[in-house]
Amino acid sequence: MAGTDSTRSGAQADKEAISPAIILVDPQLGENIGMAARAMLNCALFDLRLVRPRDGWPNEKAVSAACGADAVLERLRLHETAADAVADLQRVYAATARPRDMTKEVVTPRQAASDMRRLTAAGVRCGILFGAEAKGLDNDDVALADAVLTVPLNPGFSSLNLANAVFTIGYEWFQGADRTAAATLSLPKETRPANKAEMLAFFEHMEKELDACGFLRVKEKRPVMVRNLRNLFQRARLSEQEVRTLRGVISGLVKGKKNTD
Amino acid sequence: MAGTDSTRSGAQADKEAISPAIILVDPQLGENIGMAARAMLNCALFDLRLVRPRDGWPNEKAVSAACGADAVLERLRLHETAADAVADLQRVYAATARPRDMTKEVVTPRQAASDMRRLTAAGVRCGILFGAEAKGLDNDDVALADAVLTVPLNPGFSSLNLANAVFTIGYEWFQGADRTAAATLSLPKETRPANKAEMLAFFEHMEKELDACGFLRVKEKRPVMVRNLRNLFQRARLSEQEVRTLRGVISGLVKGKKNTD
Repeated sequence: MAGTDSTRSGAQADKEAISPAIILVDPQLGENIGMAARAMLNCALFDLRLVRPRDGWPNEKAVSAACGADAVLERLRLHETAADAVADLQRVYAATARPRDMTKEVVTPRQAASDMRRLTAAGVRCGILFGAEAKGLDNDDVALADAVLTVPLNPGFSSLNLANAVFTIGYEWFQGADRTAAATLSLPKETRPANKAEMLAFFEHMEKELDACGFLRVKEKRPVMVRNLRNLFQRARLSEQEVRTLRGVISGLVKGKKNTD
Repeated sequence: MAGTDSTRSGAQADKEAISPAIILVDPQLGENIGMAARAMLNCALFDLRLVRPRDGWPNEKAVSAACGADAVLERLRLHETAADAVADLQRVYAATARPRDMTKEVVTPRQAASDMRRLTAAGVRCGILFGAEAKGLDNDDVALADAVLTVPLNPGFSSLNLANAVFTIGYEWFQGADRTAAATLSLPKETRPANKAEMLAFFEHMEKELDACGFLRVKEKRPVMVRNLRNLFQRARLSEQEVRTLRGVISGLVKGKKNTD
């Protein structure tokens, strides 16, 4: 899954200004900070804030693990406290397991992403707090948030890698505005889907040769055979080029047979 | 995000048998294999297959990075070729960027997960091929697949970490059967949402004290003030316990004022 285009348009700069902030509280491993930055840029999130990174900042391992996510690392900000890191935000989520001792709204990443799309469109600044790798957010950090964000996962093994946790909300954020078709047939530029005239000409070519070689000799089975073959090739959603290839295949087989006869 | 329960029920064993396979072709770093295993178990995927892992198998770094995803590592299988690894599967996706030179169906992770839920329910075995970290799948591996799976991401930075790529399809697979409410108010066990009688008794208590201290003395503003305060506290969706706490807060403030008078 490669592909990077470093050009940044004015429209993108606008988007950067209003995309949600990711706040890592007490992150331990530089690798995880870097992978979180990479996951953010994958999802067009740009505002990364660190609260008391254990190994200080800058961190070479983070830069290496970010794999070129410079647009995130360059504007990264450091904060002394989680309260300081969220001071300018108006809607804050705490990424953590469902709280047991607090009365708190709990939302899925999909719901949070949908809410944040609506809120940022109205000019409301949003952010998500993530805790340290081993111990997560403490209760005072959770109390800074308007709602808890919990990823529905296998209850038998729900401990999520920090970068995956960041990626989950980023992924849902990005999908919320993405217009990619759920399923589409990708074709090389030089061709197009075959039309029905081309398909019928191919079928008639094939059936003529199958009649000639005797494959369709059992008269009562012929209509079913023909329909099955036509269905099979139509299910393949052939391109115009592929129809020509298949006609060449049939001609080749016929010619080969004649040569060896 | 912690929490692990290692008990495995018979129902779960059934699910393991039919969940999609994850096939890593030429994986390079043990850490990525381990993180992929962890991401799989997070999402209740259990069938991991490796084709020619660069550093051999078993791999200590993979075990360490898996963070206890033993249910995946224990049943991991090694294969000589991608074709061998997918031999028993009936529907295979290739996780890669949109193909430029092939006529191929391209689906989103959400669509693929939805299709695989339907297919596995009908007994069809599914799997997803992932390429090596740096170079991805080669065209012959892509040609083994029925469809290409492409994650819609920032076109300016779409190179996805291997474990995140595995997690994306696992996450969508898990969400496809998950019934978690999109948003819910989590309450401690010992309390419940306040009812309207409790809210009204609280409002009347507060308003009586605000009348007494003169806060509501401007007669024409009183109705608006009262409505605003009632709205504010209703928006907080208080628990019965919190209503009692707030009544204590008001009583405390009143008593404190009297003491200092």
